[in-house]
Amino acid sequence: MSQSIPQTMRAAVLHGKSDWRLQDYPVPTPGPLEVLMKVYACSICGTDPRVIRDGWPGMPPFGSFIPGHEYSGQIVAIGPGVTDFAVGDRVAIESHKGCGHCLNCKQGRYTICLNYGKPETGHRHYGFTANGGYAQYAVNHVSTLYHISDSVAYEEAALVTTAACVHFALDNVGGLLGGETVAVLGPGPIGLMGVQLVKALGATKVILTGTRHERLDVGKALGADVIVNIHEQDAVAVAKAETGGLGVDLVLECSGSPEAAAQAIEMCRRGARISYIGDPHVMATINLRKFVLDDLRAAGVRGEGMADCRRSLALLAAGKIVAKPMITHHFPLEEVNEGLQTFIQRKGGALKVVIQPNG
Amino acid sequence: MSQSIPQTMRAAVLHGKSDWRLQDYPVPTPGPLEVLMKVYACSICGTDPRVIRDGWPGMPPFGSFIPGHEYSGQIVAIGPGVTDFAVGDRVAIESHKGCGHCLNCKQGRYTICLNYGKPETGHRHYGFTANGGYAQYAVNHVSTLYHISDSVAYEEAALVTTAACVHFALDNVGGLLGGETVAVLGPGPIGLMGVQLVKALGATKVILTGTRHERLDVGKALGADVIVNIHEQDAVAVAKAETGGLGVDLVLECSGSPEAAAQAIEMCRRGARISYIGDPHVMATINLRKFVLDDLRAAGVRGEGMADCRRSLALLAAGKIVAKPMITHHFPLEEVNEGLQTFIQRKGGALKVVIQPNG
Amino acid sequence: MSQSIPQTMRAAVLHGKSDWRLQDYPVPTPGPLEVLMKVYACSICGTDPRVIRDGWPGMPPFGSFIPGHEYSGQIVAIGPGVTDFAVGDRVAIESHKGCGHCLNCKQGRYTICLNYGKPETGHRHYGFTANGGYAQYAVNHVSTLYHISDSVAYEEAALVTTAACVHFALDNVGGLLGGETVAVLGPGPIGLMGVQLVKALGATKVILTGTRHERLDVGKALGADVIVNIHEQDAVAVAKAETGGLGVDLVLECSGSPEAAAQAIEMCRRGARISYIGDPHVMATINLRKFVLDDLRAAGVRGEGMADCRRSLALLAAGKIVAKPMITHHFPLEEVNEGLQTFIQRKGGALKVVIQPNG
Amino acid sequence: MSQSIPQTMRAAVLHGKSDWRLQDYPVPTPGPLEVLMKVYACSICGTDPRVIRDGWPGMPPFGSFIPGHEYSGQIVAIGPGVTDFAVGDRVAIESHKGCGHCLNCKQGRYTICLNYGKPETGHRHYGFTANGGYAQYAVNHVSTLYHISDSVAYEEAALVTTAACVHFALDNVGGLLGGETVAVLGPGPIGLMGVQLVKALGATKVILTGTRHERLDVGKALGADVIVNIHEQDAVAVAKAETGGLGVDLVLECSGSPEAAAQAIEMCRRGARISYIGDPHVMATINLRKFVLDDLRAAGVRGEGMADCRRSLALLAAGKIVAKPMITHHFPLEEVNEGLQTFIQRKGGALKVVIQPNG
Repeated sequence: MSQSIPQTMRAAVLHGKSDWRLQDYPVPTPGPLEVLMKVYACSICGTDPRVIRDGWPGMPPFGSFIPGHEYSGQIVAIGPGVTDFAVGDRVAIESHKGCGHCLNCKQGRYTICLNYGKPETGHRHYGFTANGGYAQYAVNHVSTLYHISDSVAYEEAALVTTAACVHFALDNVGGLLGGETVAVLGPGPIGLMGVQLVKALGATKVILTGTRHERLDVGKALGADVIVNIHEQDAVAVAKAETGGLGVDLVLECSGSPEAAAQAIEMCRRGARISYIGDPHVMATINLRKFVLDDLRAAGVRGEGMADCRRSLALLAAGKIVAKPMITHHFPLEEVNEGLQTFIQRKGGALKVVIQPNG
Repeated sequence: MSQSIPQTMRAAVLHGKSDWRLQDYPVPTPGPLEVLMKVYACSICGTDPRVIRDGWPGMPPFGSFIPGHEYSGQIVAIGPGVTDFAVGDRVAIESHKGCGHCLNCKQGRYTICLNYGKPETGHRHYGFTANGGYAQYAVNHVSTLYHISDSVAYEEAALVTTAACVHFALDNVGGLLGGETVAVLGPGPIGLMGVQLVKALGATKVILTGTRHERLDVGKALGADVIVNIHEQDAVAVAKAETGGLGVDLVLECSGSPEAAAQAIEMCRRGARISYIGDPHVMATINLRKFVLDDLRAAGVRGEGMADCRRSLALLAAGKIVAKPMITHHFPLEEVNEGLQTFIQRKGGALKVVIQPNG
Repeated sequence: MSQSIPQTMRAAVLHGKSDWRLQDYPVPTPGPLEVLMKVYACSICGTDPRVIRDGWPGMPPFGSFIPGHEYSGQIVAIGPGVTDFAVGDRVAIESHKGCGHCLNCKQGRYTICLNYGKPETGHRHYGFTANGGYAQYAVNHVSTLYHISDSVAYEEAALVTTAACVHFALDNVGGLLGGETVAVLGPGPIGLMGVQLVKALGATKVILTGTRHERLDVGKALGADVIVNIHEQDAVAVAKAETGGLGVDLVLECSGSPEAAAQAIEMCRRGARISYIGDPHVMATINLRKFVLDDLRAAGVRGEGMADCRRSLALLAAGKIVAKPMITHHFPLEEVNEGLQTFIQRKGGALKVVIQPNG
Repeated sequence: MSQSIPQTMRAAVLHGKSDWRLQDYPVPTPGPLEVLMKVYACSICGTDPRVIRDGWPGMPPFGSFIPGHEYSGQIVAIGPGVTDFAVGDRVAIESHKGCGHCLNCKQGRYTICLNYGKPETGHRHYGFTANGGYAQYAVNHVSTLYHISDSVAYEEAALVTTAACVHFALDNVGGLLGGETVAVLGPGPIGLMGVQLVKALGATKVILTGTRHERLDVGKALGADVIVNIHEQDAVAVAKAETGGLGVDLVLECSGSPEAAAQAIEMCRRGARISYIGDPHVMATINLRKFVLDDLRAAGVRGEGMADCRRSLALLAAGKIVAKPMITHHFPLEEVNEGLQTFIQRKGGALKVVIQPNG
């Protein structure tokens, strides 16, 4: 190991529900097939406030658990067996590492590993069931690492799973046929990245729906052709009108609202696909009759998958999608709680808030 | 044309809502790419009573419309351009013929043709928007015809879309991986054929749920490993218990009950697939959260598709699936209304009722 | 029909092998589901010289056959049953119209219709087995029409199948995973469009191989990251070196050279895919051992398919791919033979040569 | 660990090229996520003679290497972290264990792991780069284990990858559509299992080609509809004649003969698929023109994959495919060399030869 690695670091450790403290913490050592990285950017995801408030099933004990699952950095040490990564490499991570041997993992679906939360089987969910990125250093298995192009900044790369999640959503519903009309429901980070991605892949018309004018305006700037404030317009009627009455070819439900979940079906043309990405936390009441008679297809999307971080970083590097316009705030690690509050309360129109543990 | 074809035939014609009459009717003439068949079997489908009671959007005018969409017979005349079928051929039909040139048809999804109900575009839905099989003769486009093996009886072949619908359901959810555990909800004709099909394709354990003991018993005889009367047992709990707590790999929802639609999701292991085949006619309230977090996939299935009638007839011919045990009653065409009542009221445990227009 | 349509037009008619004559010809009348268009651009494809020299199986008789299968124009009349297109619409065509009812057509693979060349079944291959676009007017079935965005010029739209062919190639090999390294063999029109497409869809590194410096330079300008003149460098060695020794993820073989067909396999990493688009006309000797041991996959591509013209036009309209830099020459219809010679002899670096039948 | 496990066992150890010796050997200890099994059956595969004659890249050193990759047995001890298997379980194995973190593994393609032969990355190929089954005991990672139904004998289960390889071949070419005509080239174990599998999945007509009457007769008994001795008949002509001139829908090339590899293409109807399973060891000269113009698809198949052992064991348990008729000889471990010679020289019509290390 290089001599420049200190023995302790600063980290934001969860000591109890809603008890998140900055403190010194031992710098971890990479084991077999693991690397140690110096974390340069860790962005706050909508799941983080819940993890900090409630904890997470299978997390490390209070007092030792470091959350954070959207991060990037530079490798400073490697463990035994690592051949594809070296000290000095710039990398971004995905948070899921499957056990590698359950039926789902063997078929390439590692984000829904059947051994979730059982570390003895090899499963890891960084920032949830293993320590994550709100710290100066972090250890990751090579399975979760992706090289970053020199042209992509650490803070942009930290958002890679935001894009990869939408990429995986497209995979799961059979891809996007260029020339299609796509409805994106919910102008949060996932939805705004979704707008960009489907435009980059050839969607002709993208309809973005939401409730906040300022976010819809960001969506418009990022490529949405039609924006609909559902407080003012009937989203289903607009979707029909914009498609000559047929309905859209694809819906990305990114809001998590049960009403939007139902609208997604009503907007569809015969044979359309729906990707349910937003987690509604409650039951949803839907028109299953239309779903059946129109041969609709739907897929739930827990997160990234299929190594789609790789393609997302490639599109970022090529400038076909951008992350910077979605990053509204930066905080040093010492102000992580202020960053969290900014994100939760959407202070100053906060969209993505990035913590920078190493300045 | 052969001289043995009469100018008139007996047919069951819809004269108004719930006004279905037997009468003489002109034998139709096959146009380009059409054949005329002598109908030997037309089975009653659950949709027929509704068509007869309410009519159907785009149907021929009252007084001229012959319903019936599950039929088979022998070709007695062919129209211009027919090269793949000849007089004397034994054939079964599927009811959907797409326009052939809309986006869905060009991608092979002719059952959800975007020109449904517009005959001028070439679309036909026999027994719905074009005349069907409750008659001694019927005209069909070659696109809807499939040869029957000599070893398959007309009445068995008349049920081909019952099997093809399940085959298409499997296609739409990415197939069946042998060794999987499958839950089939609803022991009607579709569900009972579903039990047979998934067993034929290598499912290890099939759990069939329903409310009627006698139908569940038929399911058991046709291959179901576990039967659950939901008036007596919790279907979700059984599904979990039978899979070591994981949940099943695939659900075929064939009942059309909104409660079953919701149970389908609860029964799933992470990454499982659901085929929604039953039409619930009402809204369904579902656990979309589990759908999202477990990367579930679902597909609605309107009917047969992808030329899956061909594979269904092949499995019938090979004896891997059977239709006869599901056929409980036969009626001549003159007693079609008695057949219909037997089916609707499930007299004598009626499951599939076959009308034989030519004895 | 509009009064402005004349009764005769100018057309380039094949009177015998290599006997192609400009003459007056009756303007055709659109039948059911057909339109009549005024042709504004018809580009010369590599197949045209062969059709003109040798004829084509199933073509209309010498003296009546008008070749040309890459064209676009404006609709001036519509036949019975046409609902999705109207007089005045700007449209591009694809040359294949399947019969719509064979097994391949029913599964959406209309370019390999099993009734190819049998017009009585409904099959058409415009410019091959039916009249095409080297004329002032042409009739097309709606199945072969695609609307053109106002921002796309007729001559650009005439090249739509060049792009659609590569799109279909990607479909047939399971798509492109962004971030992949792609080798494109052969810098002809298909290869140059291939370079653009895979870059537009997120390929990180594109290696273009060929024998002519000027065409390779066009490829470089259109996005190729690495160009290889195979007279000067070993293409397989370069492909390995550019991928850290692994081999490329995807190969598009667009040259039709049997040597390139063999190199395609040698360049592959384990699990890579190969799309064979170029027609070699001769046998090819390949390393099938590597194909087997590395789980390689290959797909032949006859032409466009899956309605991929739609997505190609969408990418053209969005500026993600361009056609103009590939169009080197224009000729009026009266100089069609000069255009043909320019194309065949590659005069003035001819790449795509466009005939403009209506000025 | 149970007390009944001895410290040494009998094993067949490779001491040099073609120097394979029976000897005492330390019983191995299972590490994390590994089990120790008592081996009851290890069948000889066509690759074994080559491994024994030439060694294998990445194998353990001469003097310590135990070959054998088709085996089954009972678990007698488990290592740390094993949760899905227990002492007493009956299991069969697949030979490939991917590293779990390269791009191919993350997409579920572990048999073509990019870290093949690098044990430090976690990759194992039992019987090739790690010790295998010609021994009384063997250690395997849980990733390679499958439970055996009580109704399946150890020797049958030992052949699981023979079936799984064909299952994976079907996956890789997009599955089998029941009702299809399939040509199987080469009546070795893979081909004979292929005949059974495609019949079990609904193939209507199976054409088996080969050079030995006795093996073709076994194929006939196992379900082939047409057998062709290529010394007596033209296999391509038969395939065409049996399909009304169209060509077959699917070819499984299991012979490894370059002539058969070429015939596979000639036999195809438009749009057909070819699975190349046999390894020809030499170059093959093929009609790539037909491959391109008919939109053919081909996939190489290195071995099993996608956890297809599971579905193969399910079909074995259900009696839909059988292994016993293919097992012609049994030998105790002490006579392993006699077994090998019986297999190589095809003594007594040897097809599959099973070694029984524990009687």
